[in-house]
Amino acid sequence: MLKSFNEIIEIAKGKNAIISLAGAEDIESLKAIKNVQDLGIKAILVGNKPIIEKHLQDLNLELPIEHAENEIEASEKAVKLVSSGKANVLMKGLVKTSTLLKAVLNKEWGLRTGNLLSHIALLETPGINRIIFVTDGGMIIKPDINQKIGIIKNAVSLAHKLGYETPKVALIAAVEVVNPDMPETMEAAIISKMADRGQIKGCKLDGPLGLDNALSIFAAEVKKVKGDVAGNADILVVPDIHSGNFLGKSAVYLANGEIAGIIMGASAPIIIVSRADTSKSKRNSIALAAAISK
Amino acid sequence: MLKSFNEIIEIAKGKNAIISLAGAEDIESLKAIKNVQDLGIKAILVGNKPIIEKHLQDLNLELPIEHAENEIEASEKAVKLVSSGKANVLMKGLVKTSTLLKAVLNKEWGLRTGNLLSHIALLETPGINRIIFVTDGGMIIKPDINQKIGIIKNAVSLAHKLGYETPKVALIAAVEVVNPDMPETMEAAIISKMADRGQIKGCKLDGPLGLDNALSIFAAEVKKVKGDVAGNADILVVPDIHSGNFLGKSAVYLANGEIAGIIMGASAPIIIVSRADTSKSKRNSIALAAAISK
Repeated sequence: MLKSFNEIIEIAKGKNAIISLAGAEDIESLKAIKNVQDLGIKAILVGNKPIIEKHLQDLNLELPIEHAENEIEASEKAVKLVSSGKANVLMKGLVKTSTLLKAVLNKEWGLRTGNLLSHIALLETPGINRIIFVTDGGMIIKPDINQKIGIIKNAVSLAHKLGYETPKVALIAAVEVVNPDMPETMEAAIISKMADRGQIKGCKLDGPLGLDNALSIFAAEVKKVKGDVAGNADILVVPDIHSGNFLGKSAVYLANGEIAGIIMGASAPIIIVSRADTSKSKRNSIALAAAISK
Repeated sequence: MLKSFNEIIEIAKGKNAIISLAGAEDIESLKAIKNVQDLGIKAILVGNKPIIEKHLQDLNLELPIEHAENEIEASEKAVKLVSSGKANVLMKGLVKTSTLLKAVLNKEWGLRTGNLLSHIALLETPGINRIIFVTDGGMIIKPDINQKIGIIKNAVSLAHKLGYETPKVALIAAVEVVNPDMPETMEAAIISKMADRGQIKGCKLDGPLGLDNALSIFAAEVKKVKGDVAGNADILVVPDIHSGNFLGKSAVYLANGEIAGIIMGASAPIIIVSRADTSKSKRNSIALAAAISK
């Protein structure tokens, strides 16, 4: 169980992470990379060389550059740096997410594994004494059951890579009872039974649970929700992108906490930060990807 | 603009709120009522008289009791106390929510107004310098456009009763752009245009907005989202019960903040607290209902 982002940053320090930055003309991304140099994280910059060189000068940075004429070429070259083993983390700069992911999914030189690509946010907030994973609030809009299982597998895989032996997964909904008027609670029940039958491995899983009785032992006791997960969840699987997105952002905007985001399911971790992310959150996201890099 | 629950508690003190408690055999509800006596809030207890008398003795409380044989009778009597003007706030004790709401909606002696009944949560958290309204995370599972407009009207009405002249309403989604793959963003755009055309009054309304650019002026600037609401939202209208429920609970379980809940749309405010609510949250909810009581 991880208690804080500092632990993730410590893990990242021990790795030789090399980021391949697609669209390195983006000065904010370069600042974020400068901001993790103290962790020993390296980077290769892919994009328009003259523009990047100018930014590097402004930031007093020295990093290798691979020239690309446009964002399609930048995405392809950046992905190939990872698939060829010259880098082990992919990061989105000034290229469209869709362009980058198309390159990631290329069958010849991409980073396909056959798994779904999904987003996982990690939260550190004053109300909880541990890191909480939330998925998927960033990528898959309204997952069906098969996609939800893919989402769970990616989150469990991330937890394993971070040292969790048996992460506790809660499929959360507005209520902890199965309500036929709420399809989300029925899907949670179905997936929960699949886990009971050994169809989902490497974790303890339960649902539906409310956010309260997933996170708080007190709330679980008051609501008389039993089991290994209730009150102790590490991973919260949300019904859709909106609910997950609000929960992730609430950690920052309501709780004054911190967040990190990562995309799992490819053969290397993928970092996509938002312009509105704080510099702390960008640092956390890069450290998270570095911490699980091969 | 309200900054904290203390301001709501101050408003409540100036009212002569009288709660009608349906199913007063519930000792937790009685404790919650005892806990607001310092605000001058009174109560009439409806339910099994011998059991209630025993609890009152244990709690060292003295309150008028109206006997009811069962929860249907308790709900009816409690509602009638409000519709007849003997009480001005309805509260759920040990009766089913569905039973109580059936009584509320009775055409002869109920509290119908023709408006939709909807739930509004008020949040006070360390990350935001003002009270944030979230709706509907407690009652309507997946509102259609007409129901969303009813939800907005109830929230705006609550804000007006609390002294807001022109509350700022944000229809939030995972993203602030209209995305045809996300029906929630299109509904937000439609309702936003209805407000532009004067079809929704008494507020400033915009959407879709992300949680970040609805609440934070900095995030709104970075994302270049303009308008009166961005960065300054008072009321967050969420896509469904799950997303609203997580957001409300995140205020408590992630942010160590406080929450109050109320049901609007009837001719009197309705309080439905959960057993898992903290005593502070119960106090806030009762004070909120009292603050807007007639």
